[in-house]
This record gives sequence, structure tokens and C-alpha cells, in this order.
Amino acid sequence: MHGIWLEDRRLSMRTDLAEPSIDGEVMVRVRVAGVCNTDLEVLRGYRSLNGILGHEFMGVVLDAGPLMGRRVVGEINIRPRDCRCAACARGDVTHCARRTVLGINGRSGTFAECVSLPIENLHVVPDTVPDEAAVFVEPLAAACEVLEQVGVGPRDRVVVVGPGKLGLLCAQVLATTGCTVTVVGRRPAALALARRLGLTACDLANAPNGNDLVVDCTGTPDGFAASRGLVRPRGTLVLKSTYVGELTVDMSRLVVDEIRLIGSRCGPFPRALQLLIDRTVQVTPLIEARYPLAQGLAALEHAERPGAQKILIDIPG
Amino acid sequence: MHGIWLEDRRLSMRTDLAEPSIDGEVMVRVRVAGVCNTDLEVLRGYRSLNGILGHEFMGVVLDAGPLMGRRVVGEINIRPRDCRCAACARGDVTHCARRTVLGINGRSGTFAECVSLPIENLHVVPDTVPDEAAVFVEPLAAACEVLEQVGVGPRDRVVVVGPGKLGLLCAQVLATTGCTVTVVGRRPAALALARRLGLTACDLANAPNGNDLVVDCTGTPDGFAASRGLVRPRGTLVLKSTYVGELTVDMSRLVVDEIRLIGSRCGPFPRALQLLIDRTVQVTPLIEARYPLAQGLAALEHAERPGAQKILIDIPG
Repeated sequence: MHGIWLEDRRLSMRTDLAEPSIDGEVMVRVRVAGVCNTDLEVLRGYRSLNGILGHEFMGVVLDAGPLMGRRVVGEINIRPRDCRCAACARGDVTHCARRTVLGINGRSGTFAECVSLPIENLHVVPDTVPDEAAVFVEPLAAACEVLEQVGVGPRDRVVVVGPGKLGLLCAQVLATTGCTVTVVGRRPAALALARRLGLTACDLANAPNGNDLVVDCTGTPDGFAASRGLVRPRGTLVLKSTYVGELTVDMSRLVVDEIRLIGSRCGPFPRALQLLIDRTVQVTPLIEARYPLAQGLAALEHAERPGAQKILIDIPG
Repeated sequence: MHGIWLEDRRLSMRTDLAEPSIDGEVMVRVRVAGVCNTDLEVLRGYRSLNGILGHEFMGVVLDAGPLMGRRVVGEINIRPRDCRCAACARGDVTHCARRTVLGINGRSGTFAECVSLPIENLHVVPDTVPDEAAVFVEPLAAACEVLEQVGVGPRDRVVVVGPGKLGLLCAQVLATTGCTVTVVGRRPAALALARRLGLTACDLANAPNGNDLVVDCTGTPDGFAASRGLVRPRGTLVLKSTYVGELTVDMSRLVVDEIRLIGSRCGPFPRALQLLIDRTVQVTPLIEARYPLAQGLAALEHAERPGAQKILIDIPG
């Protein structure tokens, strides 16, 4: 089959890939995949994947069974069936110590014609949610994870730093709680997009200070420092991006101000799907460009452009 | 009066100091003061104090008024009366934006014959609590702060890294919840002291992995790294020490494991006093040496020795 192959940190468009066929799993025909910043971090060596890149997708189940022919999206952390590691025993299955991660770690991903996943990772997409919205379920679930970790309510003052595709999802999800959300960033085009989504947006110089919650979606040391500066004493700073390399932090300031710093990763698919069903969150305005799979390398190059929003890869049937 | 004066990062024993006399505050005759690691950090330039060092104390109220002649301990963050900063408006008075901090920032401290504090900072010490226990209320309150920030219960597995004087207070406070606490450190003498206090103690090589909560009381980069490694995914890492300088952190690990990192500082005096009244926590075994104020510089030198536990300074009446 056709797919975007990564090996020794080099990408190639391949037409000779074997279809993934994993015992006990379900084969899905991918219809559309999304490029995430984590894909770009994997290209830079964040994980040493040798396989098909990509983890965001919407597809149609090929295999016979209860889901055959249904449109599905899929959770990306795959645990061995009956794993009894400490995380699985606690029910923290996305933290399974023996997990593989779709297109990131130990398992081929979604920039290809077919992908394989255990049935428990799949969620059926209702007919009212179009393909190009459903492909956002995975990053939207990651945005929802913030609400699983931090109690947010109408009296809270919240800032999202970094108006990229993940930041704009986080800001919209946070706004559903009735809190005051401000999106902070540098690029006028991104701030304008935030405003079209109904969000308040400004540059750092005009950002409100002393916020209860700041969500850093920048993944950069400067972004972290800016985010840190916007949190009130005893406030919460959520790190929503993976950073390649290390970050130097003034820990004494964290201690003196009793800041809570929370790492945040994958989130609940059902909550994300419901936001799309209810049209509470707008995702399709984030689509900057769509490329057919044959031009997948161009899609990834486009995604690398500073300020790029969501790039989709369409896989012709 | 006599006192230990810090100026331009140089210490001197002075006999010519003016008694502190601040309008609307209460004058306290200090009977015993304790040396904290933060004092040593102030000496190293953590804060640019010019004044009397020290913030832990037990003393007797000199001024006429409701507390006259009573034995008291005192909270160290002093906010201007009627301050309306955002922190004070929230009730986070220890985070008042206009605060001074006793013997640390903007205000002379307790290594002297007398100290001045607002009456609302003072707590009366019951007769059943001896002087040399009461002087531990301030650091014991800081240990109690962890329980204000993190829910801890009998099913939790907790590690305290750094069996110094603050770590051994934290471990005892945590143990009151019924959780499983292990103290982790390098120095055999400190681990033996932990065991005499009824705590489980071991070196890092034998430390339990995958803990729900780890409290880092080391204040060192190595200690932070060790602490980080002992937290389970979605677990909590509390930073209980001030660090001079910056710390380099692999933020991606924090994100992938969804760790909560919480800075922790001053805590509730009433809770700490109650632990002493009930004798739930043992503090006097932590006393390594006592010096009269005239030998205060020797006391601080002793406190600087690696592995030193609590050094007290007695102020003759």
C-alpha cells in the first residue's frame, strides 16, 4: 500500500508497504489524516520511530465484525491485552508501561491507506460529524484533557499561550466552562483566526496578568517563560506541548509562588466527539490546506512552516 | 540589642542594634530561634537582605495588650494592613504582593533579642509545648502545607527525598494520613535518625518506584532528578525547598507522564501547633546542637555542615 515511511529520521513516500495486519486487531481504511506538531517532533528525533508516521485519522472499518463499514476515529495508545502493569491496574490505560503509540513509538501510524488498531481503541463517528471534523477528535480530546486535570469554572481567568492548532482547540474547550479565556500569541494571522472563532486574543504585551490558569501550547522555552509569567501565585500552569530537549526553569519562583505545573497529553475521545456533535467547538476553520497522500511529503513541509495551522492528508479510496 | 546582622552578604555579630519598633505591631522577646536552610540560601544571595537574619523563633510578648507575657510563635509573611492586592483579595495572604518576609525579604528577623510582628501573625503556644518544640512550628507548618495542596490518604505510596530537618518533618506529617511513607537519602546518620522517628528509610538504590507522591526536600538538581524518577505517571512531585539558580528539566517527560509539579512554601500554624500538642510529630530529636546568641556565627557555620540537622540559637534573657 501507499504511505509515508520514516526510517533513520528520513521520510519517504512509499508504494510498496505491507498492509498492517495484527492478530486480534481491526483494519481501518484511512480516509483523512491530520498532521500534528508531535509528528514534526518525531521527524526531529523526539522518538526513534521506524515506520509509518501519523496518528490523527478518520477512517472506515474494513474487517468483518460489529464495526464493519462504520466511520471511526482511534485512540493512539495501544496496551497489550490483559496488561497488568501498575498504570493499567489503576485504570490509567493511556499510561500503560508496555504501550505502543500509533505513529510515534513502536507502531506504524496513519499516513497510509490502512491502519490497524484494537477494537477498544476505536470510536464510531456519528453521521452528523463530517470527515474533516472527525479527524480533529484526537487533538480535541487532548485539549479536553486539561478539564480532566484542572477544575475550571466561570470565575476563572484563563490564558492560552500559543494560538496554533492545539492552542485554538484548548481555548475553545476551556471557553465551554464559562471562564474568561484570552489567547496570547505573536502572529497577527493566528490572533485573527482566534477572533473568528469567537475568542479574545492579544499579543503578550497586552496579555492579562495574574491568571488562575495558563495553558502553554507553544512548546518553546520563550513560550514557557511567558506562560509562567502570566500565572498568579497558587495558580496552575498546564504544559500541553512536547518539548524536544530540556528547559531551564527557575524552580525557586515555582516554590515561592506555589505554582502547580501540570503536564498534559492524550484525553477523552467521547467528550471530544460530543463537542463536535453539539457543534460547541469549531474545528474546520483550523484547516489551512489539504493534500492527497501522494503529495504527503509536501503536506509535511507545509506543516513545518512557522504559524501553519492544521494540514490534512486525504487518502483517495 | 544583640543580634546577627547581614549586610552586603556579610554576617556580623552586633551588640549595637536598635530594637525593632514598628507602629501598630507587637514586640516579642525571642527565647529560642532555629536555623533554616533558607537562612543559608539568603547568605548565598537568594535574597538581598540587609538586616537581622532568621525567621524561626519562639518568644514572649513584651508589649502591653492581650498577649502580654504569653509565649508565642509567629508567621513570617507580613502584609500591609488593609492591603487589597489580588492575592489578599483571594485570601492568599501569604502571597500578598506587597509582603515583607521576616529575616528574608525587607524586614529584620529573629536571630536577635527582640523581633516585631503584627499581632495577627502571632500564635499563642500552649503550656504543654516546651520552647524547644515550639521553635519548630514554622517549619512544621511548611511541612503541613503539602497536605493543604495534595489530597493524601491511606492508599497512597509516598516518598520524601532528602532526610534533612525539613524532610523529616514532611515525612512525619505525611505519615499522619496513614499513607505508606519512605524517606530516601544518602547519609546513613540521617536515615538512622529517620528510623528512630518511626519512619521507613533507605538509599536511592533501594527506593520504591512508581509513587503517587514524591516530596523533594533536597533543593539540589540531583535531588530533583532522583525525585522525578520516583513519581508514577499522573503522580505528584512537590518541591519543598528553595533552589538558588535555575534547574534544567526534561519537560517532555513531565508532559508524557502527565506529572503534577507543585511548589510548596509556608503553611498553616494552627495545624502545626496541634501536631505538637497531640505529640503526633517528634521534633526535638532533630536538634543537633544549641548555641547561645553570642556564638551565633558558630551556629550558622555548624548549620552549613553537610547533613546538619536543626541548629537552635538560645537567646539569654
